[in-house]
Amino acid sequence: MHTFPKSIERLIGQLTQLPGVGPKTASRLVFYLLRDDRVVLSEFAESIANLKADLVTCETCHNIADENPCRICADVARDATILCLVEEPLDVLALERSGYRGQYHVLGGRISPMDGIGPGQLTIDDLILRLKAHSEIGEVVIATNPNVEGEATASYIVRILRDLPVKLTRIARGLPMGGDLEYADELTLHRAMEGRSALSQEAA
Amino acid sequence: MHTFPKSIERLIGQLTQLPGVGPKTASRLVFYLLRDDRVVLSEFAESIANLKADLVTCETCHNIADENPCRICADVARDATILCLVEEPLDVLALERSGYRGQYHVLGGRISPMDGIGPGQLTIDDLILRLKAHSEIGEVVIATNPNVEGEATASYIVRILRDLPVKLTRIARGLPMGGDLEYADELTLHRAMEGRSALSQEAA
Repeated sequence: MHTFPKSIERLIGQLTQLPGVGPKTASRLVFYLLRDDRVVLSEFAESIANLKADLVTCETCHNIADENPCRICADVARDATILCLVEEPLDVLALERSGYRGQYHVLGGRISPMDGIGPGQLTIDDLILRLKAHSEIGEVVIATNPNVEGEATASYIVRILRDLPVKLTRIARGLPMGGDLEYADELTLHRAMEGRSALSQEAA
Repeated sequence: MHTFPKSIERLIGQLTQLPGVGPKTASRLVFYLLRDDRVVLSEFAESIANLKADLVTCETCHNIADENPCRICADVARDATILCLVEEPLDVLALERSGYRGQYHVLGGRISPMDGIGPGQLTIDDLILRLKAHSEIGEVVIATNPNVEGEATASYIVRILRDLPVKLTRIARGLPMGGDLEYADELTLHRAMEGRSALSQEAA
């Protein structure tokens, strides 16, 4: 059977290693790159080659950043009394979009025995040092993902941090806004019932 | 609001220009590239930078290829009496997968007044020269896409080629294999009825 020219096959092979990109998507992307002039191939290639070169890890929050400390940690206008614990840098962006303006700490993943990731590979030790050094942090919001591994990671961290003089909270799990009770899964509904709040309290 | 470091933002911007890639997909791809070692960034970048360098257009069939003439046109074992007319190089691969083993001619698109593409931008003139020079080609199967522009392109080509001593055929349009009559759209069903074949004929 006829196959594509070698340079096309090679790029298709590399693209299919990306998440969510199958052989058909990869072929379409490559032929798009071949045809379209909006993406300049040399500039695109340069961005990929230099992707890691200009990046550092912020030593305070472990987020990926241009500089150390990162712009969030260096921003004195932000609330220094609350710290949100997340799994990945992308979670920081999601919370920023939601309007949160406190501190962050990026774990660098979740505890996942299946993937061979234990607590030692996460930035938990640094978090403890940070909480001890910064007594102004009064609350840690654990915002790991609401799935099996994220919940297990949250439980583990609660056990580790519970003796520190800091309030531990968990981001709420419940019905997503715009969602429909009828289509919600049982676990979400169960959590939403468990996490119900008094209306007078919410109004306060 | 906090944004990503510059090198990340730049690559996200370039990725979102690709078809089917939105800002969320682009972010996920970039962080995957940052984290995963299976795709070596320098090699990936090199593939993109060199994508066009090693490619030529086959002067016979206008497919994208490693060499001119391409492997298909150079293959003497293939049927030289039938030529399949397609819009894009990706269509060649799809037909190769289906088991077709004749010649091809790649139009390089479809007639699309909306996109400012007229017959002059397609390889129709070269096709006429090719048919005149190669009298062994007895049949041209027009396999442009079964949509408005593909059908219009097919009609145009029939008008242009009808005086040449070559049989013109159109790839069949009907129910897709594994499809369901109940869910087929009206136009497909209409075409499927129009294109019905006698069972004795099909068995022959």
